[in-house]
Amino acid sequence: VSGSRVPDPVSVQGDEVAETFLRGRLRILQKKRGYRFSLDPVLLAARVALKRGDRVIDLGTGSGIIPLLLAARHETGAIVGLEIQERYADMARRSVALGGLAERIEIRRGDVRDARIEFGPESFDVATCNPPFRPVGTGKVNPSDEKAIARHEVAGTLSDFVAAMRYLLRQRGRAHLVVPAARLVDLLAILRGARLEPSRLRTVHPRPGSRAELALVEAVKGGKPGLTVEAPLVVNGDGEGYSDEVAAILSGDRP
Amino acid sequence: VSGSRVPDPVSVQGDEVAETFLRGRLRILQKKRGYRFSLDPVLLAARVALKRGDRVIDLGTGSGIIPLLLAARHETGAIVGLEIQERYADMARRSVALGGLAERIEIRRGDVRDARIEFGPESFDVATCNPPFRPVGTGKVNPSDEKAIARHEVAGTLSDFVAAMRYLLRQRGRAHLVVPAARLVDLLAILRGARLEPSRLRTVHPRPGSRAELALVEAVKGGKPGLTVEAPLVVNGDGEGYSDEVAAILSGDRP
Repeated sequence: VSGSRVPDPVSVQGDEVAETFLRGRLRILQKKRGYRFSLDPVLLAARVALKRGDRVIDLGTGSGIIPLLLAARHETGAIVGLEIQERYADMARRSVALGGLAERIEIRRGDVRDARIEFGPESFDVATCNPPFRPVGTGKVNPSDEKAIARHEVAGTLSDFVAAMRYLLRQRGRAHLVVPAARLVDLLAILRGARLEPSRLRTVHPRPGSRAELALVEAVKGGKPGLTVEAPLVVNGDGEGYSDEVAAILSGDRP
Repeated sequence: VSGSRVPDPVSVQGDEVAETFLRGRLRILQKKRGYRFSLDPVLLAARVALKRGDRVIDLGTGSGIIPLLLAARHETGAIVGLEIQERYADMARRSVALGGLAERIEIRRGDVRDARIEFGPESFDVATCNPPFRPVGTGKVNPSDEKAIARHEVAGTLSDFVAAMRYLLRQRGRAHLVVPAARLVDLLAILRGARLEPSRLRTVHPRPGSRAELALVEAVKGGKPGLTVEAPLVVNGDGEGYSDEVAAILSGDRP
């Protein structure tokens, strides 16, 4: 996203680059090829408020970008990142080590569909997820491809991720998800069906006056109906470069 | 809304005023007291595109504002307005007469819950609705009060209105609704449950940077999932008065 590339002789492997975030305070490894994160998890992480003692789980954590941003931004919070692909889990662990965040972030290899085996019920206060969003059957999918697992619903559908959130969150615990705007109805209906009641929605538009590409949704386990639709988030300004708000999010000056 | 008040000795009763719309091309009667329409139906009507021969029904038409705006704006289309309260139906009929639109608009007194008695199945191409949006049990409700019937879900819930739309629309027919933003999840879930698939969403914000107050939703009977989230509609400009877009809608220069 923002990043200049800073190779590290110790922890960065040949097929990886280290992207810098938060004015250089954080470096996150990602693959040069294969699935690469975009702005989605950065915008999602910026919406999560943590209170002292909050236990957080990020489902399908990939490079670990959401746990890393949360730990770098908040002084409190114990965060677990769950990732099905060992190659990504290993890379995420090395980013955690690079940032000296091993005491606060645990990266665990595991399948969201096995959340009941991995964790106890209601054991988290906050759950985050930037799910693989493309239904199987759209676009080319090779189920053995690691990129496909990160992008498509091969290893867990939106419903699987939401079901895991429901199991893992305590009552009144908060779920944060980001999906393509086209899947907003799916997400809202699935959340309500799981009694994770959508409480806040913010749509993300590439520029002023354009359609939304993403939807950021917060839901509360056992919450009452009543959605707050926030002002839209515009990514690019009228001129070149990011809007002031997105620039502030990327630099860590905000929230 | 926009209107200057132009009393008419023939058709305007003592408890009514005639509001002008579309640079004076249209006058619509409404009660001085009791339920008064706001911007919601005006914004909804501006989203409806009509093709030659389209049959349109507006459910819970009240003052008839949506049929009147559609007929004034489009040269084609036969429009039925269904209203449960005779006092409002009568007033709507007089607005139709005032505008010389009786050949294109029929105002019928009837209950949306009896749509199957009033009309044949799949007998409309387009259905519109600015439903009474407050669930019974919120705020003060007197079920015998005509204002309550227009505002609360006394004479039909959101589900009742959507069920009537489903029955009345042909396959691929389009439903247009406006609801408070807080009820967006309700509406989307109910539409999908009725196989009226939400296709377009536009949120309405009082001013730039503020939360949405309304949500304008279009759905297609038997449509495929995949929502388009449009750029938000901002009602007030940065300075005083309406934004350019809303001013153009009110003047009839746009949709």
